[in-house]
Amino acid sequence: MSTEQNLYDAFTGEAKAAVRLTAYARKAEEEEYEAIAKLFRAVSASESIHAYNNLRLLKEIKDTETNLQEALASEQKIAAVAYGKFIAEAEAEGKEAAATMFSYARDVEDRHAKLYEMALQHLVADEVPDYFVCSVCGYVADGAVPDKCPICGAPEDKFFAVE
Amino acid sequence: MSTEQNLYDAFTGEAKAAVRLTAYARKAEEEEYEAIAKLFRAVSASESIHAYNNLRLLKEIKDTETNLQEALASEQKIAAVAYGKFIAEAEAEGKEAAATMFSYARDVEDRHAKLYEMALQHLVADEVPDYFVCSVCGYVADGAVPDKCPICGAPEDKFFAVE
Repeated sequence: MSTEQNLYDAFTGEAKAAVRLTAYARKAEEEEYEAIAKLFRAVSASESIHAYNNLRLLKEIKDTETNLQEALASEQKIAAVAYGKFIAEAEAEGKEAAATMFSYARDVEDRHAKLYEMALQHLVADEVPDYFVCSVCGYVADGAVPDKCPICGAPEDKFFAVE
Repeated sequence: MSTEQNLYDAFTGEAKAAVRLTAYARKAEEEEYEAIAKLFRAVSASESIHAYNNLRLLKEIKDTETNLQEALASEQKIAAVAYGKFIAEAEAEGKEAAATMFSYARDVEDRHAKLYEMALQHLVADEVPDYFVCSVCGYVADGAVPDKCPICGAPEDKFFAVE
Protein backbone atom coordinates (compact mmCIF):
# COMPACT_ATOMS: atom_id res chain seq x y z
CA MET A 1 0.00 0.00 0.00
CA SER A 2 2.70 2.52 0.84
CA THR A 3 4.38 1.99 -2.55
CA GLU A 4 1.17 3.14 -4.29
CA GLN A 5 1.21 6.31 -2.20
CA ASN A 6 4.96 6.74 -2.72
CA LEU A 7 4.54 6.50 -6.49
CA TYR A 8 1.85 9.15 -6.30
CA ASP A 9 3.92 11.44 -4.06
CA ALA A 10 6.97 10.99 -6.30
CA PHE A 11 4.85 11.75 -9.38
CA THR A 12 3.62 14.97 -7.73
CA GLY A 13 7.07 16.03 -6.53
CA GLU A 14 8.78 15.34 -9.85
CA ALA A 15 6.04 17.12 -11.84
CA LYS A 16 6.38 20.21 -9.62
CA ALA A 17 10.18 20.09 -9.94
CA ALA A 18 9.94 19.88 -13.74
CA VAL A 19 7.88 23.09 -13.91
CA ARG A 20 9.93 24.89 -11.26
CA LEU A 21 13.15 24.18 -13.19
CA THR A 22 11.74 25.54 -16.45
CA ALA A 23 10.87 28.71 -14.49
CA TYR A 24 14.45 28.83 -13.18
CA ALA A 25 15.70 28.34 -16.76
CA ARG A 26 13.65 31.32 -17.96
CA LYS A 27 15.06 33.43 -15.14
CA ALA A 28 18.64 32.32 -15.94
CA GLU A 29 18.07 33.32 -19.58
CA GLU A 30 16.86 36.75 -18.49
CA GLU A 31 20.03 37.10 -16.39
CA GLU A 32 22.14 35.85 -19.35
CA TYR A 33 23.41 32.71 -17.61
CA GLU A 34 23.02 30.63 -20.77
CA ALA A 35 24.90 27.55 -19.49
CA ILE A 36 22.86 27.41 -16.29
CA ALA A 37 19.62 27.93 -18.21
CA LYS A 38 20.53 24.88 -20.28
CA LEU A 39 21.37 22.85 -17.18
CA PHE A 40 17.97 23.71 -15.68
CA ARG A 41 16.27 22.64 -18.93
CA ALA A 42 18.22 19.36 -18.89
CA VAL A 43 17.30 18.58 -15.29
CA SER A 44 13.68 19.59 -15.95
CA ALA A 45 13.54 17.06 -18.81
CA SER A 46 14.98 14.47 -16.44
CA GLU A 47 12.37 15.18 -13.74
CA SER A 48 9.62 14.95 -16.38
CA ILE A 49 10.85 11.44 -17.21
CA HIS A 50 10.76 10.52 -13.51
CA ALA A 51 7.22 11.90 -13.18
CA TYR A 52 6.17 9.91 -16.27
CA ASN A 53 7.75 6.70 -14.91
CA ASN A 54 5.78 7.05 -11.67
CA LEU A 55 2.54 7.63 -13.55
CA ARG A 56 3.19 4.58 -15.73
CA LEU A 57 3.73 2.34 -12.69
CA LEU A 58 0.54 3.74 -11.16
CA LYS A 59 -1.19 2.38 -14.32
CA GLU A 60 -2.97 5.71 -14.78
CA ILE A 61 -2.36 5.81 -18.52
CA LYS A 62 -5.23 4.03 -20.24
CA ASP A 63 -6.28 3.75 -23.89
CA THR A 64 -6.63 7.06 -25.75
CA GLU A 65 -10.42 7.23 -25.72
CA THR A 66 -10.48 6.71 -21.93
CA ASN A 67 -7.64 9.21 -21.48
CA LEU A 68 -9.62 11.80 -23.47
CA GLN A 69 -12.74 11.20 -21.37
CA GLU A 70 -10.76 11.53 -18.15
CA ALA A 71 -9.00 14.68 -19.40
CA LEU A 72 -12.40 16.17 -20.30
CA ALA A 73 -13.95 15.29 -16.93
CA SER A 74 -10.96 16.78 -15.14
CA GLU A 75 -11.14 20.07 -17.07
CA GLN A 76 -14.85 20.43 -16.45
CA LYS A 77 -14.39 19.88 -12.72
CA ILE A 78 -11.46 22.31 -12.45
CA ALA A 79 -13.09 25.10 -14.47
CA ALA A 80 -16.37 24.91 -12.57
CA VAL A 81 -15.23 24.20 -9.01
CA ALA A 82 -11.62 25.01 -8.14
CA TYR A 83 -11.01 28.18 -10.16
CA GLY A 84 -14.43 29.65 -9.32
CA LYS A 85 -13.59 29.44 -5.61
CA PHE A 86 -10.02 30.69 -6.15
CA ILE A 87 -11.26 33.76 -8.06
CA ALA A 88 -13.83 34.66 -5.38
CA GLU A 89 -11.24 34.33 -2.60
CA ALA A 90 -8.60 36.36 -4.47
CA GLU A 91 -11.15 39.13 -5.08
CA ALA A 92 -12.21 39.11 -1.42
CA GLU A 93 -8.55 39.43 -0.39
CA GLY A 94 -7.86 42.22 -2.90
CA LYS A 95 -5.31 40.06 -4.76
CA GLU A 96 -6.02 41.48 -8.21
CA ALA A 97 -3.15 39.80 -10.11
CA ALA A 98 -4.08 36.39 -8.76
CA ALA A 99 -7.79 36.95 -9.48
CA THR A 100 -7.01 37.88 -13.10
CA MET A 101 -4.66 34.93 -13.58
CA PHE A 102 -7.15 32.44 -12.06
CA SER A 103 -9.86 33.88 -14.28
CA TYR A 104 -7.73 33.45 -17.44
CA ALA A 105 -6.94 29.89 -16.34
CA ARG A 106 -10.63 29.08 -15.81
CA ASP A 107 -11.54 30.37 -19.27
CA VAL A 108 -8.65 28.47 -20.85
CA GLU A 109 -9.69 25.22 -19.09
CA ASP A 110 -13.19 25.75 -20.49
CA ARG A 111 -11.66 25.98 -23.95
CA HIS A 112 -9.65 22.77 -23.36
CA ALA A 113 -12.90 21.01 -22.51
CA LYS A 114 -14.41 22.12 -25.84
CA LEU A 115 -11.34 20.91 -27.75
CA TYR A 116 -11.56 17.53 -25.99
CA GLU A 117 -15.28 17.26 -26.79
CA MET A 118 -14.57 17.87 -30.48
CA ALA A 119 -11.76 15.30 -30.37
CA LEU A 120 -14.04 12.69 -28.77
CA GLN A 121 -16.59 13.21 -31.56
CA HIS A 122 -13.91 12.69 -34.22
CA LEU A 123 -11.49 10.26 -32.62
CA VAL A 124 -9.81 9.56 -35.95
CA ALA A 125 -9.11 12.89 -37.62
CA ASP A 126 -8.73 13.26 -41.39
CA GLU A 127 -5.77 15.53 -40.83
CA VAL A 128 -3.62 16.68 -37.93
CA PRO A 129 -4.62 20.26 -37.00
CA ASP A 130 -2.21 23.10 -36.25
CA TYR A 131 -2.35 24.29 -32.65
CA PHE A 132 -0.97 27.58 -31.32
CA VAL A 133 -0.64 28.34 -27.61
CA CYS A 134 -0.70 31.81 -26.00
CA SER A 135 2.43 32.04 -23.87
CA VAL A 136 0.73 34.53 -21.52
CA CYS A 137 -2.48 32.72 -20.53
CA GLY A 138 -2.19 29.29 -22.19
CA TYR A 139 -5.14 29.74 -24.62
CA VAL A 140 -5.04 27.04 -27.33
CA ALA A 141 -6.00 28.22 -30.84
CA ASP A 142 -6.57 25.69 -33.61
CA GLY A 143 -6.01 26.26 -37.32
CA ALA A 144 -4.48 29.75 -37.20
CA VAL A 145 -3.03 32.31 -34.79
CA PRO A 146 -5.68 34.90 -33.85
CA ASP A 147 -4.91 38.65 -34.19
CA LYS A 148 -5.03 38.81 -30.43
CA CYS A 149 -5.71 36.29 -27.70
CA PRO A 150 -9.48 36.08 -27.03
CA ILE A 151 -8.81 35.40 -23.32
CA CYS A 152 -6.01 37.77 -22.25
CA GLY A 153 -5.66 40.08 -25.26
CA ALA A 154 -1.99 39.22 -25.93
CA PRO A 155 -0.82 40.08 -29.48
CA GLU A 156 -0.22 37.34 -32.05
CA ASP A 157 3.57 37.31 -31.53
CA LYS A 158 2.95 35.83 -28.05
CA PHE A 159 1.67 32.59 -29.64
CA PHE A 160 3.90 29.59 -30.33
CA ALA A 161 3.18 26.59 -32.57
CA VAL A 162 2.83 23.11 -31.06
CA GLU A 163 5.06 20.51 -32.74
CA MET B 1 -4.03 33.70 3.22
CA SER B 2 -6.23 31.37 1.19
CA THR B 3 -5.00 32.87 -2.09
CA GLU B 4 -1.42 31.84 -1.21
CA GLN B 5 -2.62 28.28 -0.64
CA ASN B 6 -4.78 28.38 -3.77
CA LEU B 7 -1.81 29.49 -5.87
CA TYR B 8 0.18 26.61 -4.45
CA ASP B 9 -2.61 24.08 -5.04
CA ALA B 10 -3.15 25.38 -8.58
CA PHE B 11 0.61 25.16 -9.25
CA THR B 12 0.60 21.53 -8.08
CA GLY B 13 -2.52 20.58 -10.02
CA GLU B 14 -1.39 22.22 -13.25
CA ALA B 15 2.11 20.71 -13.02
CA LYS B 16 0.61 17.23 -12.57
CA ALA B 17 -1.79 17.82 -15.47
CA ALA B 18 1.08 18.92 -17.73
CA VAL B 19 2.96 15.65 -17.14
CA ARG B 20 -0.16 13.49 -17.32
CA LEU B 21 -1.05 14.98 -20.72
CA THR B 22 2.39 14.31 -22.17
CA ALA B 23 1.93 10.70 -21.03
CA TYR B 24 -1.47 10.64 -22.78
CA ALA B 25 0.20 12.11 -25.89
CA ARG B 26 2.78 9.30 -25.92
CA LYS B 27 0.01 6.73 -25.61
CA ALA B 28 -1.98 8.37 -28.42
CA GLU B 29 1.12 8.23 -30.64
CA GLU B 30 1.52 4.52 -29.88
CA GLU B 31 -2.12 4.02 -30.87
CA GLU B 32 -1.59 6.17 -34.01
CA TYR B 33 -4.05 8.90 -33.04
CA GLU B 34 -1.72 11.64 -34.31
CA ALA B 35 -4.25 14.48 -34.09
CA ILE B 36 -5.17 13.63 -30.50
CA ALA B 37 -1.50 13.27 -29.54
CA LYS B 38 -0.96 16.80 -30.80
CA LEU B 39 -3.99 18.10 -28.90
CA PHE B 40 -2.64 16.55 -25.69
CA ARG B 41 0.75 18.18 -26.33
CA ALA B 42 -0.97 21.55 -26.92
CA VAL B 43 -3.00 21.33 -23.71
CA SER B 44 0.07 20.13 -21.79
CA ALA B 45 1.95 23.24 -22.93
CA SER B 46 -1.02 25.33 -21.80
CA GLU B 47 -1.08 23.70 -18.33
CA SER B 48 2.68 24.28 -18.01
CA ILE B 49 2.06 28.00 -18.58
CA HIS B 50 -0.64 27.98 -15.90
CA ALA B 51 1.71 26.20 -13.47
CA TYR B 52 4.43 28.76 -14.25
CA ASN B 53 2.04 31.68 -13.72
CA ASN B 54 1.11 30.34 -10.27
CA LEU B 55 4.75 29.91 -9.31
CA ARG B 56 5.54 33.44 -10.47
CA LEU B 57 2.74 34.92 -8.33
CA LEU B 58 4.00 32.86 -5.37
CA LYS B 59 7.31 34.75 -5.86
CA GLU B 60 9.22 31.46 -5.69
CA ILE B 61 11.50 32.36 -8.60
CA LYS B 62 14.53 34.20 -7.20
CA ASP B 63 17.85 35.24 -8.77
CA THR B 64 19.76 32.47 -10.53
CA GLU B 65 22.37 31.89 -7.84
CA THR B 66 19.64 31.47 -5.20
CA ASN B 67 17.62 29.24 -7.56
CA LEU B 68 20.69 27.02 -8.06
CA GLN B 69 21.27 26.76 -4.33
CA GLU B 70 17.63 25.87 -3.72
CA ALA B 71 17.64 23.32 -6.55
CA LEU B 72 20.79 21.73 -5.07
CA ALA B 73 19.35 21.60 -1.53
CA SER B 74 16.15 20.06 -2.88
CA GLU B 75 18.02 17.32 -4.82
CA GLN B 76 20.15 16.43 -1.82
CA LYS B 77 17.10 16.11 0.40
CA ILE B 78 15.14 14.01 -2.13
CA ALA B 79 18.02 11.62 -2.94
CA ALA B 80 18.88 11.00 0.71
CA VAL B 81 15.49 10.96 2.38
CA ALA B 82 12.46 10.35 0.16
CA TYR B 83 13.81 7.84 -2.37
CA GLY B 84 15.71 5.85 0.29
CA LYS B 85 12.45 5.27 2.16
CA PHE B 86 10.51 4.55 -1.05
CA ILE B 87 13.06 1.93 -2.16
CA ALA B 88 13.00 0.14 1.22
CA GLU B 89 9.19 0.05 1.24
CA ALA B 90 8.94 -1.17 -2.36
CA GLU B 91 11.42 -3.96 -1.61
CA ALA B 92 9.53 -4.94 1.56
CA GLU B 93 6.30 -5.11 -0.49
CA GLY B 94 7.94 -7.12 -3.29
CA LYS B 95 7.28 -4.32 -5.82
CA GLU B 96 10.39 -4.92 -7.91
CA ALA B 97 9.60 -2.57 -10.81
CA ALA B 98 8.91 0.31 -8.42
CA ALA B 99 12.04 -0.45 -6.36
CA THR B 100 14.19 -0.38 -9.51
CA MET B 101 12.62 2.83 -10.80
CA PHE B 102 12.97 4.59 -7.40
CA SER B 103 16.58 3.46 -7.26
CA TYR B 104 17.33 4.87 -10.74
CA ALA B 105 15.63 8.11 -9.73
CA ARG B 106 17.70 8.37 -6.53
CA ASP B 107 20.95 7.87 -8.46
CA VAL B 108 19.90 10.39 -11.10
CA GLU B 109 19.01 12.99 -8.43
CA ASP B 110 22.47 12.44 -6.94
CA ARG B 111 23.92 13.23 -10.34
CA HIS B 112 21.78 16.39 -10.64
CA ALA B 113 23.24 17.55 -7.31
CA LYS B 114 26.78 17.12 -8.68
CA LEU B 115 25.91 19.08 -11.83
CA TYR B 116 24.45 21.89 -9.70
CA GLU B 117 27.56 21.94 -7.48
CA MET B 118 29.76 22.33 -10.56
CA ALA B 119 27.49 25.08 -11.88
CA LEU B 120 27.65 26.97 -8.56
CA GLN B 121 31.46 26.86 -8.68
CA HIS B 122 31.48 28.30 -12.21
CA LEU B 123 28.42 30.50 -12.32
CA VAL B 124 29.55 32.17 -15.53
CA ALA B 125 30.63 29.45 -17.95
CA ASP B 126 33.08 30.06 -20.78
CA GLU B 127 30.89 28.03 -23.06
CA VAL B 128 27.45 26.43 -22.99
CA PRO B 129 27.85 22.66 -22.54
CA ASP B 130 25.95 19.99 -24.46
CA TYR B 131 23.58 17.95 -22.30
CA PHE B 132 22.03 14.61 -23.24
CA VAL B 133 19.21 13.01 -21.23
CA CYS B 134 18.48 9.27 -20.98
CA SER B 135 14.81 8.85 -21.89
CA VAL B 136 14.56 5.70 -19.74
CA CYS B 137 15.86 6.88 -16.35
CA GLY B 138 16.51 10.63 -16.82
CA TYR B 139 20.31 10.47 -16.39
CA VAL B 140 21.91 13.74 -17.57
CA ALA B 141 25.22 13.35 -19.46
CA ASP B 142 27.32 16.40 -20.25
CA GLY B 143 29.67 16.80 -23.19
CA ALA B 144 28.88 13.57 -25.07
CA VAL B 145 26.44 10.66 -25.17
CA PRO B 146 27.86 7.66 -23.26
CA ASP B 147 27.96 4.22 -24.96
CA LYS B 148 25.38 3.14 -22.45
CA CYS B 149 23.60 4.85 -19.57
CA PRO B 150 25.69 4.49 -16.39
CA ILE B 151 22.51 4.30 -14.29
CA CYS B 152 20.06 2.06 -16.17
CA GLY B 153 22.23 0.60 -18.95
CA ALA B 154 20.08 1.97 -21.80
CA PRO B 155 21.92 2.13 -25.17
CA GLU B 156 23.06 5.46 -26.63
CA ASP B 157 20.08 5.76 -28.99
CA LYS B 158 17.86 6.28 -25.93
CA PHE B 159 19.53 9.66 -25.25
CA PHE B 160 18.18 12.95 -26.57
CA ALA B 161 19.95 16.30 -26.78
CA VAL B 162 18.74 19.27 -24.70
CA GLU B 163 18.16 22.41 -26.75
